[in-house]
Amino acid sequence: MTDLQQMGQRAVAAKTALQALSPQEKGNALRLAAVRLIERQEEILRANAKDMEAARANDMAQGLLDRLRLDEKRIRAMAEGLEQIAALPDPVGEVMEEWERPNGLRIRKIRVPIGVVGIIYEARPNVTADAFGLCFQTANAVILKGGSDALCSNAAIVKVLREALLELQIPEDALQLIEDRDRAVTVAFMKLKEYIDVLIPRGSAGLIQSVVENSTIPVIETGTGNCHVYVDKDADLDMAVSIIKNAKTQRIGVCNACESLVVHSDIREAFLPKLRQALAEKNVELRGDTRVCQILPEAVRATEEDYGTEYLDYILSLKTVDSLEEAIAHINRYNTRHSDCIVTENREAAEQFLREVDAACVYWNASTRFTDGFEFGFGAEIGISTQKLHARGPMGLKELTSYKYAVYGSGQVRP
Amino acid sequence: MTDLQQMGQRAVAAKTALQALSPQEKGNALRLAAVRLIERQEEILRANAKDMEAARANDMAQGLLDRLRLDEKRIRAMAEGLEQIAALPDPVGEVMEEWERPNGLRIRKIRVPIGVVGIIYEARPNVTADAFGLCFQTANAVILKGGSDALCSNAAIVKVLREALLELQIPEDALQLIEDRDRAVTVAFMKLKEYIDVLIPRGSAGLIQSVVENSTIPVIETGTGNCHVYVDKDADLDMAVSIIKNAKTQRIGVCNACESLVVHSDIREAFLPKLRQALAEKNVELRGDTRVCQILPEAVRATEEDYGTEYLDYILSLKTVDSLEEAIAHINRYNTRHSDCIVTENREAAEQFLREVDAACVYWNASTRFTDGFEFGFGAEIGISTQKLHARGPMGLKELTSYKYAVYGSGQVRP
Repeated sequence: MTDLQQMGQRAVAAKTALQALSPQEKGNALRLAAVRLIERQEEILRANAKDMEAARANDMAQGLLDRLRLDEKRIRAMAEGLEQIAALPDPVGEVMEEWERPNGLRIRKIRVPIGVVGIIYEARPNVTADAFGLCFQTANAVILKGGSDALCSNAAIVKVLREALLELQIPEDALQLIEDRDRAVTVAFMKLKEYIDVLIPRGSAGLIQSVVENSTIPVIETGTGNCHVYVDKDADLDMAVSIIKNAKTQRIGVCNACESLVVHSDIREAFLPKLRQALAEKNVELRGDTRVCQILPEAVRATEEDYGTEYLDYILSLKTVDSLEEAIAHINRYNTRHSDCIVTENREAAEQFLREVDAACVYWNASTRFTDGFEFGFGAEIGISTQKLHARGPMGLKELTSYKYAVYGSGQVRP
Repeated sequence: MTDLQQMGQRAVAAKTALQALSPQEKGNALRLAAVRLIERQEEILRANAKDMEAARANDMAQGLLDRLRLDEKRIRAMAEGLEQIAALPDPVGEVMEEWERPNGLRIRKIRVPIGVVGIIYEARPNVTADAFGLCFQTANAVILKGGSDALCSNAAIVKVLREALLELQIPEDALQLIEDRDRAVTVAFMKLKEYIDVLIPRGSAGLIQSVVENSTIPVIETGTGNCHVYVDKDADLDMAVSIIKNAKTQRIGVCNACESLVVHSDIREAFLPKLRQALAEKNVELRGDTRVCQILPEAVRATEEDYGTEYLDYILSLKTVDSLEEAIAHINRYNTRHSDCIVTENREAAEQFLREVDAACVYWNASTRFTDGFEFGFGAEIGISTQKLHARGPMGLKELTSYKYAVYGSGQVRP
């Protein structure tokens, strides 16, 4: 059985060494790691072939098989990802604020690494390199627990990355992988509070729920997105169609895709037939309330459950409302605090929506698909936070840091 | 039994109304609440007398009785506390950052309330008014669970505060108290994740541990402080004595008091006798390693456990080291990430200490007793965070906020 205590101790030992690295040294290490991933791709692909074979034998679903599969192009993308991270500005060490107190104490708020990050994810080997890159660039040691179905692939990738660190005399324990399929080990990992400062689950709602319930380590919840677009009575209807089509169908399996449409009753007759036409080419199934079904007879009647569902599929729920306030109340009831949009030409309505809808990202006249680290200009992201503590929305390098106060005195004591 | 679901729903309903209040309206409400506390002190003191009587009958320890006791002066202090909070700048609504993307999207990062805050604390009725004031000024609804021994006092205070809100047509559910002594209710409260955005335990290490283990709500850990002072070989020894005397004895029961002294072997012979003399007048018990006991024969031999103990008493553990690195390693092993200090005239040593000691507040030549919201210039504080997520060190009003991204578009969709 995996000795988690020992892994924790090793991570803590590595983090001190990491914090002494210069931005140049970190960048060089990530670039070398990228080179080695390409050079040793045969070895990674062989390991991945084993995982694929076992997964096929276990009748893994087509979508999951696709996520598990590696090829030359995907390994190149991983390597490029590391190079991109190396090119991002290093946030560690930044003096965020500085002030002097009347007693002469100088207080400096300094950005520091979080320390040791734990990441639990599903059978997607590309996350392995990504998560390492983001944690390493912020001088955090990381312990990964990937999906068991990707264990051979992950182990091969981690081996290459650790050996690249070692070539540069950087402690390889900056990156560790839990190579164990036993669920009890995963649960014990969630309780390794003595060594791990934050645990980030990436994956399905079920995975995240399990981490929230079991972890004693502070958790950042990511990823569940029941995102809404509200078409106001003062909307530009063509713009609304274009935004919903993009938010629903540009990529269906992602957390920032639109799952539910809220439409003002005043414009439903003019709007819904336009929308139907735009979504028909993608065969989007519509599930609406009575007033929607009156206009779109082919629509299925939506249940209460529909409004709470993140479909990740070519399905859209539709709800009619009689006011902006009703729209906001509906969205605050069913959303997952991820991303919601209003389409309107009315500035006052938009400002009220942006203020009152409780979500990490609130949009006025733009697709929810922009909730993304790259689209926000942060570069690569470790996930989209849907909680309110620490970080909200796309989490880039800065969100993988904490801070400390350095206080400079000359003998001050408290009277 | 307390209907926690209903309390959660009421808090969520109140939070929306709170977020619509102007800074003036919030200030007025806090000032009115302060007036009412003074006017209705008789009723609060009567309730407190009941708690005190029951506590005495249960043989509550003297120190705890003192924390539980209210009098006119303490009620005045509570009222003044609310007025001070009302005078602090309102952080909600601040545009923290704003930028435009190449596609024309404008992104605004806006400071918003966290939403609903839960606070679990011990039998200290003054925390009731304090916690309400800080949460209210940041437009957060709050649900309090105070120590059962203070239930009558807390209920009386909460009644006065809620009625003050009601006078101003502000939803009284901005402040709710769990009036239940059943521990099962407290545990259920820790799992009210659907409604509560953050849970802050204030009190003993045991209380905090229990919250961390049981809560599914994100927790901010506060308060445990095993704080160190390291006297370097290049220290000004008189300054070191003055800092340790202050940090150890100015107030013993607080989390930023010094519990452990680390001393460089080169100066132990010159320094320890000086220190003994300074601490003798307060009868501080010294517990040291062999090399300390050689110089201070009256010192008790320190055990491994001593170095890990937050005494909150007139006791100091002492450890001799032969280098700065050894001092840092010792502190990182035993501290609680709260506050640690180096006394030295050597800038290089100081910088290394400030960088490598893992604590919320790291001091150079100043007492650890300055880790405090008022001393930092933040005004009142909700606690001192000892974790790295969200907030670290003294938590004032800003630390009771989150943020959201408001994204302004003109029909942008993702290509």
